[in-house]
Amino acid sequence: MNIHKHVSLNLNVRGLEQSATLTINDRTRQMQREGRTVYRLGLGQSPFPVPVPIVEALKTHAHEKDYLPAKGHRDLRGAVAEFHRKKDGIDAHPDDVLIGPGSKELMFLLQLAFYGELIVPTPCWVSYVPQAKIIGRTVSLIHTKPENQWKMTAEDLEKACEGEHDDYRPRILVLNYPSNPTGCSYNADELKEMAEVARKFEVILLSDEIYGQLHHKGAHISVARYYPEGTIISSGLSKWCGAGGWRLGTFTFPTNLDWLLETMAALASETYTSVCTPIQFAAIRAFSGGVKIERYLCHARRILSTLGNKYARMLNDAGIRVYDPVGAFYLFLDFSPLVVKMAGRGIGNSAKLCERLLEETGVAILPGSVFERPKDELTARLAYVDFDGSRALAASETIPLDQPLPDDFTESWCHKVTEAVRLIVDWVKE
Amino acid sequence: MNIHKHVSLNLNVRGLEQSATLTINDRTRQMQREGRTVYRLGLGQSPFPVPVPIVEALKTHAHEKDYLPAKGHRDLRGAVAEFHRKKDGIDAHPDDVLIGPGSKELMFLLQLAFYGELIVPTPCWVSYVPQAKIIGRTVSLIHTKPENQWKMTAEDLEKACEGEHDDYRPRILVLNYPSNPTGCSYNADELKEMAEVARKFEVILLSDEIYGQLHHKGAHISVARYYPEGTIISSGLSKWCGAGGWRLGTFTFPTNLDWLLETMAALASETYTSVCTPIQFAAIRAFSGGVKIERYLCHARRILSTLGNKYARMLNDAGIRVYDPVGAFYLFLDFSPLVVKMAGRGIGNSAKLCERLLEETGVAILPGSVFERPKDELTARLAYVDFDGSRALAASETIPLDQPLPDDFTESWCHKVTEAVRLIVDWVKE
Repeated sequence: MNIHKHVSLNLNVRGLEQSATLTINDRTRQMQREGRTVYRLGLGQSPFPVPVPIVEALKTHAHEKDYLPAKGHRDLRGAVAEFHRKKDGIDAHPDDVLIGPGSKELMFLLQLAFYGELIVPTPCWVSYVPQAKIIGRTVSLIHTKPENQWKMTAEDLEKACEGEHDDYRPRILVLNYPSNPTGCSYNADELKEMAEVARKFEVILLSDEIYGQLHHKGAHISVARYYPEGTIISSGLSKWCGAGGWRLGTFTFPTNLDWLLETMAALASETYTSVCTPIQFAAIRAFSGGVKIERYLCHARRILSTLGNKYARMLNDAGIRVYDPVGAFYLFLDFSPLVVKMAGRGIGNSAKLCERLLEETGVAILPGSVFERPKDELTARLAYVDFDGSRALAASETIPLDQPLPDDFTESWCHKVTEAVRLIVDWVKE
Repeated sequence: MNIHKHVSLNLNVRGLEQSATLTINDRTRQMQREGRTVYRLGLGQSPFPVPVPIVEALKTHAHEKDYLPAKGHRDLRGAVAEFHRKKDGIDAHPDDVLIGPGSKELMFLLQLAFYGELIVPTPCWVSYVPQAKIIGRTVSLIHTKPENQWKMTAEDLEKACEGEHDDYRPRILVLNYPSNPTGCSYNADELKEMAEVARKFEVILLSDEIYGQLHHKGAHISVARYYPEGTIISSGLSKWCGAGGWRLGTFTFPTNLDWLLETMAALASETYTSVCTPIQFAAIRAFSGGVKIERYLCHARRILSTLGNKYARMLNDAGIRVYDPVGAFYLFLDFSPLVVKMAGRGIGNSAKLCERLLEETGVAILPGSVFERPKDELTARLAYVDFDGSRALAASETIPLDQPLPDDFTESWCHKVTEAVRLIVDWVKE
């Protein structure tokens, strides 16, 4: 039997490695098993627990076992539509919602269903481009500039669209804000301008708003307000609800893109079938919201904002360029100002940078190259999540929400991340 | 904005409809909402509840929210390997197991990863072929004969492989037993002969044993015993554990096919990420088994066997060709002996047959065409599952397992399916 010699793999897939974020997770776990102290700022997982009423809802529905419709439970689709109506002020309908086992899977099905080009501003989340490669789609990257806070401008988009001399080229633009990996976000004017360009070129906008509810001031604005007919909003339980491992994502379509929704639902029925039934029931509770969940969100935001701003300051003071985050739990570190010093240490690209940092300090962060930045640019993503979110929330709850957290909060409750940032600072100063 | 005019769809996907089994489910639900009495023998969903210890395990782990490794929780992979070692007498290792959100999704990833032809004996489960079409793979159907109990013979397989004059063509053969849609299964000799042919042509065997634990005599044999180096065993919680809606499937690979497992895990990490964490914990409990779960299985098997044999008799007596089932909860009805009578009613293909039956009696079954049988062959699948599995189990538990169920059991506890079968009998006699 020689089957092992006949490695018959799809060439779009051959050599594909595990998603970088999962790989760093596996690697740091391995190092921990070997007894090393590791600071896990690689994987972007919410540090906070799933809110109690939502866990209770999962328990209540643990016995539910029927297959649900491929598009999702009717009540859940309704709750998601209502969530976007209330939170984002857009006109969403239950029939326009699709439930999937994570928004990542829905993005994959979107690319599989749609025949067109993918436009992605970088730095971008790690899976958009590999998904396009697996399916065999053309990708057009727009490298944003650090001086624009790593944000794409409407002009960048216009230039990219015009450049093809093919005005009706079918395209999907991915816009992710608050951004993974930068923690920055777009303001209303920027979104309006972007919407104009998208409308002009009839670009479908995949608006990845998975961190929307983790805007540190609760002031997230969806681009769907300015481009309702062309925007698909991507969201889910993973980030704002701390339920990454539960695997539930949502897409909300404009009614005129129902042909995409229907095709994706057909694909769903031939692949994952439907999303886990007890989880869907719990998600109805989650998207229905209420006082307890809002309070949880307010505390989570205050903690993340406090941490993000403090660490940005520390890193900036050490000569690393970082912007104050406005959402999510990431900082995008630009070591370019230290390029000569790094070169002196034999560090000439982001992969090497992160490897050496991990080796020499135990701090795991992800190189800019996995976010589609040029390999020799010395950038990296830091996820400030390696702390006990339950304890931090409990501590925050003792402090009125209209007050800032005290200076020693990060040291007391998020000691490990703080230490990790200090280790980075010391490492660059060495 | 004219986006709705630019329907840019992947041509492999354009026109793809929802999986037939989910569609019949949606349609019968709709009819019920309209107040009609419907007998839902279309969707193949276990009628039994998830065993109590497994539901309890889900409650216990409801708060778990971390992402798990793409391949699955280590302990679950261990429990699945142990399950196959004990149940199937094969040499499975934890490292050879891959966990997915349903075995359907894993089959999709397998076809996406592997570059080769798919060989499928028909009648076959509804999703193998649509998956190949979505990905763009070549499919080779082997139409089995009713007189062979709809089973493929080793000669059928040999002829199909030889026919290509391409001995090293990369191929995957799907073997599903006990069979959906026929309820028949292969015996040891048949499997040995098939294994020989598969070995000769180095065909990878995808052995879909999702109904293995629902062999009515608990006597399922895996082909992996005879072709360990080339067999991937597909299983999951959906059927034997009654947890279809939970979405957890498993693939167990031979070690020498680790390149396929690794590639599929990489694909998993870029699509669904990992399977729902609380469900994985509950699945550890499920695959660990024990007395309570074994007893549940024994009662389920006795009920399914009793029903299946009774209904096969009733339908045979009415002139429909049906085999006594040996596993699962399906009967494959062949109305060919009644072809003239049916033609007289204007029924010339299986779709029409099922449509008219549903319209005139309220009994929903699925046409043979969706199982890849020729359109004008008058066949259909009946899933004898429209009864309250909890009540039937409770009733069965009052009767010692070494005794047969009493004659009135089906009438008392599975009244609706019995009535549906009687309606079919009356309908053909009309």
